[in-house]
Amino acid sequence: MDLNSDLGEGFGVWPLTHDDALLDIVTSANVACGFHAGDPSVLRRVTERAAAHGVAVGAQVAYRDLAGFGRRFIDVDPAELVNDVIYQIAALDGFARVAGTRVRYVKPHGALYNAIVKHAEQAAAVVSAVKTYDPDLPVLGLPGSEWLRQAESAGLRTIREAFADRAYTPEGTLVSRRLPGAVIHDPDEVTERVVRMATDGEITAIDGTTVKIEPQSICVHGDTPGAVDIAVRVRDALVRAGVPLGPFTSAAGDA
Amino acid sequence: MDLNSDLGEGFGVWPLTHDDALLDIVTSANVACGFHAGDPSVLRRVTERAAAHGVAVGAQVAYRDLAGFGRRFIDVDPAELVNDVIYQIAALDGFARVAGTRVRYVKPHGALYNAIVKHAEQAAAVVSAVKTYDPDLPVLGLPGSEWLRQAESAGLRTIREAFADRAYTPEGTLVSRRLPGAVIHDPDEVTERVVRMATDGEITAIDGTTVKIEPQSICVHGDTPGAVDIAVRVRDALVRAGVPLGPFTSAAGDA
Amino acid sequence: MDLNSDLGEGFGVWPLTHDDALLDIVTSANVACGFHAGDPSVLRRVTERAAAHGVAVGAQVAYRDLAGFGRRFIDVDPAELVNDVIYQIAALDGFARVAGTRVRYVKPHGALYNAIVKHAEQAAAVVSAVKTYDPDLPVLGLPGSEWLRQAESAGLRTIREAFADRAYTPEGTLVSRRLPGAVIHDPDEVTERVVRMATDGEITAIDGTTVKIEPQSICVHGDTPGAVDIAVRVRDALVRAGVPLGPFTSAAGDA
Amino acid sequence: MDLNSDLGEGFGVWPLTHDDALLDIVTSANVACGFHAGDPSVLRRVTERAAAHGVAVGAQVAYRDLAGFGRRFIDVDPAELVNDVIYQIAALDGFARVAGTRVRYVKPHGALYNAIVKHAEQAAAVVSAVKTYDPDLPVLGLPGSEWLRQAESAGLRTIREAFADRAYTPEGTLVSRRLPGAVIHDPDEVTERVVRMATDGEITAIDGTTVKIEPQSICVHGDTPGAVDIAVRVRDALVRAGVPLGPFTSAAGDA
Repeated sequence: MDLNSDLGEGFGVWPLTHDDALLDIVTSANVACGFHAGDPSVLRRVTERAAAHGVAVGAQVAYRDLAGFGRRFIDVDPAELVNDVIYQIAALDGFARVAGTRVRYVKPHGALYNAIVKHAEQAAAVVSAVKTYDPDLPVLGLPGSEWLRQAESAGLRTIREAFADRAYTPEGTLVSRRLPGAVIHDPDEVTERVVRMATDGEITAIDGTTVKIEPQSICVHGDTPGAVDIAVRVRDALVRAGVPLGPFTSAAGDA
Repeated sequence: MDLNSDLGEGFGVWPLTHDDALLDIVTSANVACGFHAGDPSVLRRVTERAAAHGVAVGAQVAYRDLAGFGRRFIDVDPAELVNDVIYQIAALDGFARVAGTRVRYVKPHGALYNAIVKHAEQAAAVVSAVKTYDPDLPVLGLPGSEWLRQAESAGLRTIREAFADRAYTPEGTLVSRRLPGAVIHDPDEVTERVVRMATDGEITAIDGTTVKIEPQSICVHGDTPGAVDIAVRVRDALVRAGVPLGPFTSAAGDA
Repeated sequence: MDLNSDLGEGFGVWPLTHDDALLDIVTSANVACGFHAGDPSVLRRVTERAAAHGVAVGAQVAYRDLAGFGRRFIDVDPAELVNDVIYQIAALDGFARVAGTRVRYVKPHGALYNAIVKHAEQAAAVVSAVKTYDPDLPVLGLPGSEWLRQAESAGLRTIREAFADRAYTPEGTLVSRRLPGAVIHDPDEVTERVVRMATDGEITAIDGTTVKIEPQSICVHGDTPGAVDIAVRVRDALVRAGVPLGPFTSAAGDA
Repeated sequence: MDLNSDLGEGFGVWPLTHDDALLDIVTSANVACGFHAGDPSVLRRVTERAAAHGVAVGAQVAYRDLAGFGRRFIDVDPAELVNDVIYQIAALDGFARVAGTRVRYVKPHGALYNAIVKHAEQAAAVVSAVKTYDPDLPVLGLPGSEWLRQAESAGLRTIREAFADRAYTPEGTLVSRRLPGAVIHDPDEVTERVVRMATDGEITAIDGTTVKIEPQSICVHGDTPGAVDIAVRVRDALVRAGVPLGPFTSAAGDA
């Protein structure tokens, strides 16, 4: 099983994620590429450390929006979005090459991630960007999303992702953050759910029914000390449950 | 002889250089990388057209300064400058690969170009960036500059550049723009000087003496209709003088 | 009758609108405030010239989006949008004060203008910003828009705007730019329509019916030489038709 | 005696200074204006809280450099710097007015602060900006700096500032941060020095001699929990020593 988390989300003097702590926990690092966060020196540092830890580097592509941290939907012309995404993957890939590895996958960030669950034109733009840059790059996303559906149709390898601390609907989608119970805060409940999704491929939905989700990667957060602590517990619980951990794609420099 | 010019220097709705006209004139395109100008869609368009015209793509790296168009010296920490430059080369290289070619050389822009004529630490930073990203990338610059000297010491291939419309001192450096006569506006004088530097490797300095400059590339401008017109004349004059034109480095996709 | 146009929409080296030509034509200048265009030196120059010409200065507030020129909808948190708008009005007002005048009105730009025709939360945010900054500031907008409706409810003075070169539906709204005939290019037709809307308060809709629009200000464009030429003709036609021209609000420094 | 500190230096998701804690300590708040830090919502929040606490709001103007946090010298054209500074003061002043107060003084930030200790053209530009915006605005700076000297010549009210935790040369200037002993970390030593500079107007220089500095305001830092703790001690020590604390300029809304 793969564990992924967002890294490299500082900018200039402003730090954010606990990058060093997370690199001891996750197997895949979604590294910011400079559009919502991540200045070049942050990218250099994170890619080098990820490479040294055997953590796969993924491009966490986003809308161009430092002020909003990529969390605001932007109605970008899809033709421009294609190029915005290529630019970001390529810039990060430069640092990955310098670190002796490569960008191993693409995971959209924030509002772009959410938008392309349904927004067909922007989903197509991101798919086109990945396919144009490197058709062998896998993409990470929400099962059932327009994004993964189009990526699959385009011949890209898709990786189904689940969230360690989010409640699910009976249909297997995430419960909206605006609804009560959307985020699970109890560390024991989080680890129990993660072990079950990793071993049995299923989870208890918010209405008590059981849902099949069969994730290939599990997303943990690292933007607060509390979140890092939960991520540690998630990793430990998976190891104790005998789930082998490792990136879904090789982190090695074989490109 | 190589003819180079700055391209891709628009941003968003704002166009700047006459990119299409210049691609019929030059053999090497110094393409902006997004830090002083050049949004991703501009980069995509220019690299694709350059590739189609057999024009070599160079990374025109700059300080991060859209508001100042990279024309203001910034006292960037050299360790950060290394990464800023890698980021820019890599981003442009992504579009070059997509266009079936590669970034073929690096030419610093504006205030960075001027700074590293003498600023040893920043010169070292740009040299380090190029060498780290790809030690086979040639670099373009002013003969006698700290930049070319350090690049050569670091084992990079250096390309000596001359300016079509600038006056020279007896020492072979450029006459400061603050002094009268620094820029030559008469098209006939410009073309005559260019032919002489291309065929004899020499030029008449501002004091009337003859200076050896032996350029390997000649820089023409394209940011005004008048500049494009002079660039056309320069090219035609060189052709008439029997000077073979072509990029100093292969523009083909053989990387 | 008031004639308004967008000004100050350059940024750094990049010019855009024909500011000087427009200041001889219009009576109200919608000046960019730095978020979609307009660096501080542009703002200084335009406000000083507007003040010298007796042209009223309006704050053309926008989403924070230089790369997209404010033309892309951004799903900004309304609470943040309030502050983004206050920041812009205040910055421009500083230059207006320096020029001996004040910001006289507010007109949203681009995608924000279009969004708040219907987007109630963002319309409320812009209304709140204006009312918080200065409840005596009039606002310019499309008749029937959520923006003008809410502004009126909040006690702000509203100014109905019509477009010189746009086709109208029988309901008095603009024909979408995606439909044929949305923009009128024939200068004679444009001037004829403008004179009629200014003198009779009505216009022929795209289906041939007559619509009452009764504008208090007419928007002309100035982003191309052709647009400036049409703006001149519009002004001349209004003068010949005996329509007195002047800002809907005092341009003088009486604040 | 006035105590000043930098506030409002977050941007978007990234927080920085401990604004709330500092507002209980200082009497003057140097609030970022958006060029090196400080998005509009941060500015709104800090100015409102400062007004509620009776803390004077100052404009902490800076180079346009979010990536470098305004800590890198930028060779801005002085004519443009004038306008960059006016823009920043005016934007912050908008929020101050909304909060029922006004910008009460100007203190340059970071590299600009350091540059205009000696850089006559940039010092003149900032002086011109303040005088143009409001000739009654006091300016805060280093005694003996070109900045204060020119401000005084221009008729601006100048406020001499001392630093709680910095070592001084026998000439009364700051010991460069590159030299050992430049920053004093021992809280007891810091408070002892601050009380002495506040009561006797003097301080022991790094060579052991006594220097007259007679500050009108003392700068404390608040960018780390440790810094906030020292700031609290500084305030308490001044109160115990019977030094009356208050802004050097009225914080009330009497403009």
